[in-house]
Amino acid sequence: MPPGEFELIERYFSRSTPRRDVLLGVGDDAALLEMPPGRVLVAATDTLVEGRHFLPGAPAESVGHQALAVNLSDLAAMGAEPAWALLSLSIPSADEDWVRRFADGLHALAGHHGVALVGGDTVRGPRVITVTALGTVEPGLALRRDGAQPGDVLYVSGSPGEAAAGLERLGSGAPFDLADPLVRRYLYAEPRLALGRALAGRATAAMDVSDGLLGDLGKLCAASGVAARLDLDRLPVSSALAAHGTLADRERWVLYGGDDYELLFTVPAPAAMAFEATLRSSVPVTRIGAIEAGSGVRCLRRGVEERVEGSGYDHFA
Amino acid sequence: MPPGEFELIERYFSRSTPRRDVLLGVGDDAALLEMPPGRVLVAATDTLVEGRHFLPGAPAESVGHQALAVNLSDLAAMGAEPAWALLSLSIPSADEDWVRRFADGLHALAGHHGVALVGGDTVRGPRVITVTALGTVEPGLALRRDGAQPGDVLYVSGSPGEAAAGLERLGSGAPFDLADPLVRRYLYAEPRLALGRALAGRATAAMDVSDGLLGDLGKLCAASGVAARLDLDRLPVSSALAAHGTLADRERWVLYGGDDYELLFTVPAPAAMAFEATLRSSVPVTRIGAIEAGSGVRCLRRGVEERVEGSGYDHFA
Repeated sequence: MPPGEFELIERYFSRSTPRRDVLLGVGDDAALLEMPPGRVLVAATDTLVEGRHFLPGAPAESVGHQALAVNLSDLAAMGAEPAWALLSLSIPSADEDWVRRFADGLHALAGHHGVALVGGDTVRGPRVITVTALGTVEPGLALRRDGAQPGDVLYVSGSPGEAAAGLERLGSGAPFDLADPLVRRYLYAEPRLALGRALAGRATAAMDVSDGLLGDLGKLCAASGVAARLDLDRLPVSSALAAHGTLADRERWVLYGGDDYELLFTVPAPAAMAFEATLRSSVPVTRIGAIEAGSGVRCLRRGVEERVEGSGYDHFA
Repeated sequence: MPPGEFELIERYFSRSTPRRDVLLGVGDDAALLEMPPGRVLVAATDTLVEGRHFLPGAPAESVGHQALAVNLSDLAAMGAEPAWALLSLSIPSADEDWVRRFADGLHALAGHHGVALVGGDTVRGPRVITVTALGTVEPGLALRRDGAQPGDVLYVSGSPGEAAAGLERLGSGAPFDLADPLVRRYLYAEPRLALGRALAGRATAAMDVSDGLLGDLGKLCAASGVAARLDLDRLPVSSALAAHGTLADRERWVLYGGDDYELLFTVPAPAAMAFEATLRSSVPVTRIGAIEAGSGVRCLRRGVEERVEGSGYDHFA
């Protein structure tokens, strides 16, 4: 007898990171979760569609990783500590091997960040995966998009663009080879949870780069009612990225790529030096511009304004 | 210009039931939600796939209703008060009319129960909808599946089977006619939230009937480590149901149907009379059997055991 829905769920999704605040996990109508006192709940949901958000044939472990990572990145962008996740898995058949490997990828990331999988739904259908991530944050320390002020320094974390370059390599036929750092970055990008926690209470605004740095910066500016100056010369280019493509390629990956889970954030200029000092031993961050009065984003190259096309990834564009 | 993803989301999903505990709703990386002190969080997620959980061509309003209702039913089965919901909507094109009507159906049910839509994701893909519902319950009063005891009275609420009969009518070509009470029941079944609250602290076990009364009763028994006696003569048959099909049809709808959002629950025998008295003015409930020592479900007709086939709906069966 092929495994039924309920057996599948029980077998692969009920082994979860143990947390004392999970009063009731997978297996009942809903999960019961104990909130830490004095904190507010942070909730995000994101969906991956096969052929749109992940490649057909992608290693199932990487799909499990991505389904959770894209949500943990949203929690990171709020300065939250992740706690729990719920999974909705629509798959065309009860392919036990795929489900086992998918669960392995998801559980590995969940375990790394102490996240318990507490509920879910497995249905037959096209391969579409939705995860809801829940976490907590101290009230008043949460990072929003709408607090940027003229004069703030604009930062981006790490190496945006690597995942887009990796995706482009896969799209042109490269194998799913984890020895290729760009392919690996695309398949297993890490959400910036530690940085998000470090920013809580320090950054005036933050968001994760999910639709491309340029478009997301535009959204941050719109939410905050400000403008931004983006210094194209200051965009970080990792050594892995520098080894591939032309300057134009690299800039395209950095400005329009969105699967790195890097954070875009603003810090008041007087606090910027001290803030960078606190981060020295952990994740790299780069000053890439500043917040200004007005609206919109202007891109500068060697101090001269340059017109840059496009505004990021739109699923219906 | 056709509306882009973000405009769609903003336009139809940002008008939501106002709640003071929503510190930040749709539009940032995640929602910020204030928990009432002294309560625990209740979280459920459920997915609808077109052609599997709803019919192609179903009124978009009814799909919006169902996507939330199936989740609120899970909260009802825990005795929880619903508070917030997150929506993931995968649709093949930015069909504005469909999205507007879908949102109308979802918002109407959300408003009726004071639920705020606080986040979501809209992507292009096959029509697959996932809602995560969040609510709260007093610790210790939550309804679980695993507390049924031998001697408990077994109840079901309302009129199970009507939705299954309605679905069968639609499947054989009947129009989506809301004047037909069975079709209406299928499209717009109401989650039993008030009953769930009334059961909190009173029922020893509860679950919603989502995969058929017979199969779900088997799950309740397995979770509680008990057996159940189901009196087939006592199964409630509504007047709408009585007007359609044979006795065998009606029993099939009641035993295997799963879209009514009725609750299946157990109450200690000494408390059963008083419990029924408290409900008199609201939702009808019917005694349909009792919990016994042992395992499995035995069906009795006029006191004689009868073999009944099948064990409920399995998406991969």
